[in-house]
Amino acid sequence: MSGENCLTGLKVLDLTQFEAGPSCTEALAWMGADVVKIENPKSGDPGRTTLGRPGSPDRDSNYFLQYNANKRSVAVNLKDPRGVELVKRMAKHADVMIENFAPGAVERLGLGPDVIRALNPSIIYCQVKGFGTGSPYEQSLAFDMIAQACGGLMSITGEEDGKPCKPGATIGDTGTGMLMAISILGAYVRRLRTGEGEHLQVAMQDSVMHYIRNAFTYMERTGGKAAPRAGDKTVGGGNPPIGVYPCKGGGPNDYVYIFTSRANPEHWTRLLKVMGREDLIGDARYATPDARTQRREEVDAIVTEWTRKLDKHEAMRLVSLATIPAGAVLDTAELAADRTFQDRGIRQTMKHPTAGDYVMSGWPVRFGGETPALAPAPLLGEHGAEVLGEWLKMDKAAVDALRTDAVIS
Amino acid sequence: MSGENCLTGLKVLDLTQFEAGPSCTEALAWMGADVVKIENPKSGDPGRTTLGRPGSPDRDSNYFLQYNANKRSVAVNLKDPRGVELVKRMAKHADVMIENFAPGAVERLGLGPDVIRALNPSIIYCQVKGFGTGSPYEQSLAFDMIAQACGGLMSITGEEDGKPCKPGATIGDTGTGMLMAISILGAYVRRLRTGEGEHLQVAMQDSVMHYIRNAFTYMERTGGKAAPRAGDKTVGGGNPPIGVYPCKGGGPNDYVYIFTSRANPEHWTRLLKVMGREDLIGDARYATPDARTQRREEVDAIVTEWTRKLDKHEAMRLVSLATIPAGAVLDTAELAADRTFQDRGIRQTMKHPTAGDYVMSGWPVRFGGETPALAPAPLLGEHGAEVLGEWLKMDKAAVDALRTDAVIS
Repeated sequence: MSGENCLTGLKVLDLTQFEAGPSCTEALAWMGADVVKIENPKSGDPGRTTLGRPGSPDRDSNYFLQYNANKRSVAVNLKDPRGVELVKRMAKHADVMIENFAPGAVERLGLGPDVIRALNPSIIYCQVKGFGTGSPYEQSLAFDMIAQACGGLMSITGEEDGKPCKPGATIGDTGTGMLMAISILGAYVRRLRTGEGEHLQVAMQDSVMHYIRNAFTYMERTGGKAAPRAGDKTVGGGNPPIGVYPCKGGGPNDYVYIFTSRANPEHWTRLLKVMGREDLIGDARYATPDARTQRREEVDAIVTEWTRKLDKHEAMRLVSLATIPAGAVLDTAELAADRTFQDRGIRQTMKHPTAGDYVMSGWPVRFGGETPALAPAPLLGEHGAEVLGEWLKMDKAAVDALRTDAVIS
Repeated sequence: MSGENCLTGLKVLDLTQFEAGPSCTEALAWMGADVVKIENPKSGDPGRTTLGRPGSPDRDSNYFLQYNANKRSVAVNLKDPRGVELVKRMAKHADVMIENFAPGAVERLGLGPDVIRALNPSIIYCQVKGFGTGSPYEQSLAFDMIAQACGGLMSITGEEDGKPCKPGATIGDTGTGMLMAISILGAYVRRLRTGEGEHLQVAMQDSVMHYIRNAFTYMERTGGKAAPRAGDKTVGGGNPPIGVYPCKGGGPNDYVYIFTSRANPEHWTRLLKVMGREDLIGDARYATPDARTQRREEVDAIVTEWTRKLDKHEAMRLVSLATIPAGAVLDTAELAADRTFQDRGIRQTMKHPTAGDYVMSGWPVRFGGETPALAPAPLLGEHGAEVLGEWLKMDKAAVDALRTDAVIS
């Protein structure tokens, strides 16, 4: 960050849990927003125990740490009407309120958009659901994988003749969170100008569709046929050589991706030179994209003969040097071991009071050459007195009274 | 949109091409920013012909229409110094300038961050690259699939015993564009407050890592073992039943995803009731997540026996009704045919002067119940006179002179 933090002064009342909501508010927190998690005093955000480390049942999971950096936590008992009242008081002071409970739950709590927007007309009230209002599945629960199934993404992921696969990325969750974060900031810019509030809603199914728009163009080009799965290739298959080619080592991720573009005929010629196969330059069997598509297996065999002799990093280096797009298939262990991510601030160390030092991915965009600094995820209820003092000017005696009454913990 | 558009008045000078950059500026355009594409007069953004419709070589591709809605276009010859000068003049009036050329290209054009920020210190200057400054691959080209390979995503996508797969979503492109859009708006909020400019940079490889953070927690739980591919399951395998189960029809996408959560033991009992298998309730062979994991094949066979008799939509309906997360695997043709997406404004019709009516996915977030309205993608150079008049107060004679000199077209 070159100067003052971007979102200093933006108050976010955060009732979200797991990932779709927390990934959104974390993006705001990294840019300096004051994000206050409201959590149930018993166990907090269920993300605190999701994908936990075996043997550390009392410790917040790394999953939780990753999605809740730079936030604060107030533990409020929403089963007590005084807890609901407290959140309403906070909502009067918030710029943004956000929730991703199951359909209808926040309204049943008495904290739905109509109630809150009546109290604070200029608030930006945000809801993340699995399916959109008006969808036939409106009342259904969704987790990331359900959104990936119903949003079309699984239908286009996997081997051509295999079952639908679930991409390893959580597009249904974090993908949705990012679209909501953009919309919140858009609404906030208008609010700074006009004072106007907003009601934002996003559905995970609809969000997944935003990330697979290329597949729709494939369908349109082929007269409405559903876009198929294409293994390691782009939707529609692409123009060979394209895909992962096996490298020395033979491990599950010893592959290099090579992409020769239909739009750039030079890629093939350059690749032949890199591979020492100048003998094939101009060979009519492989000279055009269409010819190579017809002889896909032969083309792949020619490339594989060369890549098999090389380590994937070396293959990537040599192909890239010839300005042909290429990439080693890197796995999570390799990425975690590569110190250049820490040197560049892409991965940073969270210094957590109970979890100790935890290296994790931060916000990957650089501001003036630096990524935003990482602060610890909050302990459950860690900031009750602090936040209630700042937001509501509540003194210690008042906070203690709420604690005694088990309204907060 | 309930009132005035969110980003009215935000001027974006857009030198991006293909998808990572255009998906970012399109998000801003949907919320009302004035996004002006600077394109070369010969062929424009190469996205105009990417994945084109066969037989319509002179028509902008659907790929282009999808990523450039609601923008304007000025065709400027950047090989002519007067063209570069014109863009510099525009940069003085812009709030945001963004580019995603190959490494070093924008600097060679004389439009790099140092030049532009000296002319307009409060501009937010944005760069999208394949690899980050300081990365060993800093100078390498990247397309979406290269970023997915090098960002770890392909290593965790595909069948357990198969090759790495490429997810059908363009996380390397659109996924990156979304992170940049959030950062631009964050920097813009600060600029409105302090007048301060910013230099934003994001790398596609680093962005992909943002979407696979769960896989890193898997690695950490298993003592540093790379997260493996898990087919249709979540990274690490999850707790059966989990995954896609085949339904009636037997087509490539006739599957229903069923997810029973380890955290919610009721899911399994409820599913047994839905399937009419009350006989298995309490059966010790399947009573706990660990027991089911040990007998994964048997559990999957029990579920499959039931799902095979049902249409995927019916299976989804019945399982969802029992409040167990479930989702039919929907393909692009089914999603396109489902009118509820158009009724809800998630898919909208672009009325394009040469392409005609084109139904596409718009911005999926609702503002006050409505998604932002879709306006056509621009024809190449369509808005030259209009934009130069508005931004630079240039009169018709001045614009005509630039045209005569082939500085603009």
